[in-house]
Amino acid sequence: MRLAVERYASRLSAGDGDGVADLFADQAWIEDPIGSERKVGREVLRVFYAGAIERAHPQVELTGPVRTTNASAAAAPLRSRSFFGGRNMVIDIIDVFTFDSDGLIESMCAYFGPSNMADAES
Amino acid sequence: MRLAVERYASRLSAGDGDGVADLFADQAWIEDPIGSERKVGREVLRVFYAGAIERAHPQVELTGPVRTTNASAAAAPLRSRSFFGGRNMVIDIIDVFTFDSDGLIESMCAYFGPSNMADAES
Repeated sequence: MRLAVERYASRLSAGDGDGVADLFADQAWIEDPIGSERKVGREVLRVFYAGAIERAHPQVELTGPVRTTNASAAAAPLRSRSFFGGRNMVIDIIDVFTFDSDGLIESMCAYFGPSNMADAES
Repeated sequence: MRLAVERYASRLSAGDGDGVADLFADQAWIEDPIGSERKVGREVLRVFYAGAIERAHPQVELTGPVRTTNASAAAAPLRSRSFFGGRNMVIDIIDVFTFDSDGLIESMCAYFGPSNMADAES
Protein backbone atom coordinates (compact mmCIF):
# COMPACT_ATOMS: atom_id res chain seq x y z
CA MET A 1 0.00 0.00 0.00
CA ARG A 2 2.87 2.35 0.81
CA LEU A 3 4.40 1.67 -2.58
CA ALA A 4 1.09 2.30 -4.36
CA VAL A 5 0.70 5.66 -2.62
CA GLU A 6 4.29 6.62 -3.42
CA ARG A 7 3.71 5.69 -7.06
CA TYR A 8 0.46 7.65 -7.08
CA ALA A 9 2.38 10.79 -6.07
CA SER A 10 5.40 10.21 -8.28
CA ARG A 11 3.42 9.31 -11.41
CA LEU A 12 1.14 12.33 -10.96
CA SER A 13 4.22 14.54 -10.66
CA ALA A 14 5.76 12.92 -13.74
CA GLY A 15 2.63 13.65 -15.76
CA ASP A 16 1.98 9.94 -16.25
CA GLY A 17 -1.82 9.83 -16.14
CA ASP A 18 -1.98 6.31 -17.56
CA GLY A 19 0.42 5.15 -14.89
CA VAL A 20 -1.76 6.72 -12.20
CA ALA A 21 -4.91 5.09 -13.60
CA ASP A 22 -3.15 1.71 -13.72
CA LEU A 23 -2.84 1.81 -9.92
CA PHE A 24 -6.64 1.58 -9.67
CA ALA A 25 -8.96 -1.42 -9.83
CA ASP A 26 -11.39 -1.73 -12.71
CA GLN A 27 -14.39 -0.41 -10.73
CA ALA A 28 -12.47 1.99 -8.49
CA TRP A 29 -13.89 5.38 -7.59
CA ILE A 30 -12.53 8.66 -6.30
CA GLU A 31 -14.04 11.59 -4.46
CA ASP A 32 -11.61 14.48 -4.96
CA PRO A 33 -12.27 16.56 -2.96
CA ILE A 34 -14.50 14.75 -0.50
CA GLY A 35 -18.08 15.93 -1.04
CA SER A 36 -17.70 16.27 -4.81
CA GLU A 37 -19.26 13.92 -7.34
CA ARG A 38 -17.63 10.51 -7.42
CA LYS A 39 -15.77 9.46 -10.55
CA VAL A 40 -16.17 5.74 -11.09
CA GLY A 41 -14.19 3.26 -13.16
CA ARG A 42 -10.54 3.07 -14.20
CA GLU A 43 -11.21 4.34 -17.72
CA VAL A 44 -13.08 7.35 -16.34
CA LEU A 45 -10.14 7.95 -14.01
CA ARG A 46 -7.75 7.66 -16.94
CA VAL A 47 -9.49 10.57 -18.66
CA PHE A 48 -9.78 12.51 -15.39
CA TYR A 49 -6.09 12.24 -14.51
CA ALA A 50 -4.98 13.03 -18.06
CA GLY A 51 -7.09 16.20 -17.90
CA ALA A 52 -5.89 17.16 -14.43
CA ILE A 53 -2.26 16.75 -15.47
CA GLU A 54 -2.84 18.73 -18.66
CA ARG A 55 -4.60 21.58 -16.80
CA ALA A 56 -2.80 21.72 -13.48
CA HIS A 57 0.65 20.11 -13.85
CA PRO A 58 0.53 18.87 -10.24
CA GLN A 59 3.78 18.28 -8.38
CA VAL A 60 2.82 16.07 -5.48
CA GLU A 61 5.04 15.08 -2.57
CA LEU A 62 4.44 13.14 0.61
CA THR A 63 4.93 15.32 3.69
CA GLY A 64 4.94 12.47 6.21
CA PRO A 65 4.73 8.70 6.47
CA VAL A 66 1.99 6.76 4.70
CA ARG A 67 -0.28 5.35 7.40
CA THR A 68 -0.88 1.73 6.40
CA THR A 69 -3.47 -0.20 8.37
CA ASN A 70 -4.50 -3.82 8.87
CA ALA A 71 -7.82 -2.98 7.20
CA SER A 72 -6.76 -2.67 3.52
CA ALA A 73 -6.75 1.10 3.91
CA ALA A 74 -4.07 3.75 4.00
CA ALA A 75 -3.91 7.50 4.53
CA ALA A 76 -1.19 9.93 3.54
CA PRO A 77 -0.39 13.62 3.97
CA LEU A 78 0.52 15.27 0.69
CA ARG A 79 1.42 18.67 -0.65
CA SER A 80 0.45 19.50 -4.20
CA ARG A 81 1.85 22.41 -6.17
CA SER A 82 -0.33 23.00 -9.17
CA PHE A 83 -2.06 25.45 -11.45
CA PHE A 84 -5.51 25.60 -9.88
CA GLY A 85 -8.30 28.09 -10.43
CA GLY A 86 -6.07 30.27 -12.57
CA ARG A 87 -3.27 30.51 -10.01
CA ASN A 88 -0.20 28.62 -8.93
CA MET A 89 -1.31 27.08 -5.67
CA VAL A 90 0.11 25.00 -2.87
CA ILE A 91 -2.52 22.68 -1.41
CA ASP A 92 -2.13 20.55 1.71
CA ILE A 93 -4.12 17.37 1.20
CA ILE A 94 -4.77 14.12 3.02
CA ASP A 95 -5.71 11.24 0.74
CA VAL A 96 -7.43 8.14 2.12
CA PHE A 97 -7.17 4.98 0.01
CA THR A 98 -8.74 1.54 0.16
CA PHE A 99 -7.26 -1.44 -1.65
CA ASP A 100 -8.42 -4.73 -3.09
CA SER A 101 -6.73 -8.08 -2.52
CA ASP A 102 -4.48 -7.52 -5.56
CA GLY A 103 -3.13 -4.30 -4.08
CA LEU A 104 -5.04 -2.11 -6.52
CA ILE A 105 -6.70 1.07 -5.27
CA GLU A 106 -10.47 0.59 -4.86
CA SER A 107 -11.25 4.10 -3.65
CA MET A 108 -9.56 7.40 -2.92
CA CYS A 109 -11.00 10.32 -0.98
CA ALA A 110 -9.11 13.62 -0.92
CA TYR A 111 -9.48 15.86 2.15
CA PHE A 112 -8.75 19.55 1.67
CA GLY A 113 -10.59 22.84 1.52
CA PRO A 114 -10.04 26.55 0.99
CA SER A 115 -8.14 26.86 4.29
CA ASN A 116 -5.53 24.44 2.94
CA MET A 117 -4.84 26.39 -0.26
CA ALA A 118 -2.25 29.12 -0.56
CA ASP A 119 -0.65 31.02 -3.39
CA ALA A 120 2.66 29.46 -4.32
CA GLU A 121 5.76 31.45 -3.64
CA SER A 122 7.43 32.31 -6.89
CA MET B 1 -13.57 21.89 12.72
CA ARG B 2 -9.93 22.92 13.05
CA LEU B 3 -10.54 24.07 16.61
CA ALA B 4 -12.30 20.80 17.50
CA VAL B 5 -9.36 18.76 16.19
CA GLU B 6 -6.87 20.95 18.05
CA ARG B 7 -8.90 20.53 21.24
CA TYR B 8 -9.10 16.78 20.67
CA ALA B 9 -5.29 16.61 20.66
CA SER B 10 -4.70 19.07 23.50
CA ARG B 11 -7.33 17.57 25.81
CA LEU B 12 -6.03 14.05 25.20
CA SER B 13 -2.52 15.24 26.04
CA ALA B 14 -3.80 17.01 29.16
CA GLY B 15 -5.45 13.80 30.37
CA ASP B 16 -8.90 15.39 30.12
CA GLY B 17 -11.00 12.44 28.98
CA ASP B 18 -14.28 14.18 29.82
CA GLY B 19 -13.20 17.16 27.75
CA VAL B 20 -12.41 14.85 24.82
CA ALA B 21 -15.78 13.10 25.08
CA ASP B 22 -17.55 16.47 25.20
CA LEU B 23 -16.29 17.19 21.66
CA PHE B 24 -18.46 14.33 20.37
CA ALA B 25 -22.16 14.22 19.50
CA ASP B 26 -24.48 12.05 21.55
CA GLN B 27 -24.52 9.17 19.04
CA ALA B 28 -20.98 9.61 17.76
CA TRP B 29 -18.79 6.61 16.98
CA ILE B 30 -15.10 5.94 16.57
CA GLU B 31 -13.07 3.26 14.80
CA ASP B 32 -9.59 3.44 16.36
CA PRO B 33 -7.76 1.97 14.56
CA ILE B 34 -9.76 1.59 11.37
CA GLY B 35 -10.90 -2.02 11.09
CA SER B 36 -11.42 -2.45 14.84
CA GLU B 37 -14.82 -2.66 16.50
CA ARG B 38 -16.69 0.64 16.54
CA LYS B 39 -17.34 2.31 19.87
CA VAL B 40 -20.68 4.09 19.76
CA GLY B 41 -22.14 6.85 21.93
CA ARG B 42 -20.60 9.72 23.87
CA GLU B 43 -20.89 7.94 27.22
CA VAL B 44 -19.12 4.88 25.82
CA LEU B 45 -16.43 7.20 24.48
CA ARG B 46 -16.16 8.88 27.88
CA VAL B 47 -15.24 5.54 29.44
CA PHE B 48 -12.97 4.62 26.52
CA TYR B 49 -10.95 7.84 26.63
CA ALA B 50 -10.67 7.77 30.42
CA GLY B 51 -9.24 4.26 30.15
CA ALA B 52 -6.91 5.12 27.29
CA ILE B 53 -5.55 8.11 29.20
CA GLU B 54 -5.13 6.04 32.37
CA ARG B 55 -3.31 3.24 30.51
CA ALA B 56 -1.33 5.05 27.85
CA HIS B 57 -0.87 8.70 28.90
CA PRO B 58 -0.94 9.81 25.25
CA GLN B 59 0.85 13.00 24.27
CA VAL B 60 -0.68 13.95 20.94
CA GLU B 61 0.52 16.71 18.62
CA LEU B 62 -0.51 17.81 15.17
CA THR B 63 2.31 17.35 12.66
CA GLY B 64 0.72 19.37 9.87
CA PRO B 65 -2.32 21.46 9.05
CA VAL B 66 -5.83 20.16 9.72
CA ARG B 67 -7.46 19.55 6.35
CA THR B 68 -10.92 21.07 6.62
CA THR B 69 -13.35 20.41 3.80
CA ASN B 70 -16.64 21.77 2.54
CA ALA B 71 -18.23 18.40 3.35
CA SER B 72 -18.39 18.55 7.19
CA ALA B 73 -15.28 16.41 7.34
CA ALA B 74 -11.69 17.01 8.33
CA ALA B 75 -8.47 15.00 8.40
CA ALA B 76 -5.33 15.61 10.40
CA PRO B 77 -1.83 14.14 10.73
CA LEU B 78 -0.91 13.45 14.34
CA ARG B 79 1.92 11.98 16.33
CA SER B 80 1.12 10.21 19.56
CA ARG B 81 3.66 9.36 22.22
CA SER B 82 2.15 6.85 24.58
CA PHE B 83 2.58 3.70 26.61
CA PHE B 84 1.25 1.08 24.21
CA GLY B 85 1.58 -2.68 24.34
CA GLY B 86 3.96 -2.48 27.27
CA ARG B 87 6.34 -0.02 25.62
CA ASN B 88 6.78 3.69 25.14
CA MET B 89 5.82 4.16 21.54
CA VAL B 90 5.68 6.91 18.96
CA ILE B 91 2.79 6.36 16.55
CA ASP B 92 2.14 8.36 13.39
CA ILE B 93 -1.60 8.58 12.89
CA ILE B 94 -4.06 10.22 10.53
CA ASP B 95 -7.47 10.85 12.06
CA VAL B 96 -10.51 11.49 9.84
CA PHE B 97 -13.45 13.25 11.48
CA THR B 98 -17.01 14.04 10.43
CA PHE B 99 -19.06 16.73 12.15
CA ASP B 100 -22.71 17.53 12.76
CA SER B 101 -24.30 20.93 12.20
CA ASP B 102 -23.46 21.96 15.79
CA GLY B 103 -19.77 21.36 15.17
CA LEU B 104 -19.70 18.21 17.31
CA ILE B 105 -17.73 15.20 16.10
CA GLU B 106 -20.03 12.53 14.64
CA SER B 107 -17.34 10.01 13.77
CA MET B 108 -13.60 9.53 13.98
CA CYS B 109 -11.53 6.93 12.14
CA ALA B 110 -7.85 6.51 13.04
CA TYR B 111 -5.46 5.32 10.34
CA PHE B 112 -2.23 3.68 11.51
CA GLY B 113 -0.65 0.26 11.62
CA PRO B 114 2.47 -1.56 12.77
CA SER B 115 4.62 0.23 10.19
CA ASN B 116 3.73 3.54 11.85
CA MET B 117 4.81 2.50 15.34
CA ALA B 118 8.31 2.93 16.69
CA ASP B 119 9.93 2.69 20.08
CA ALA B 120 10.21 6.11 21.65
CA GLU B 121 13.66 7.52 22.10
CA SER B 122 14.43 7.77 25.78
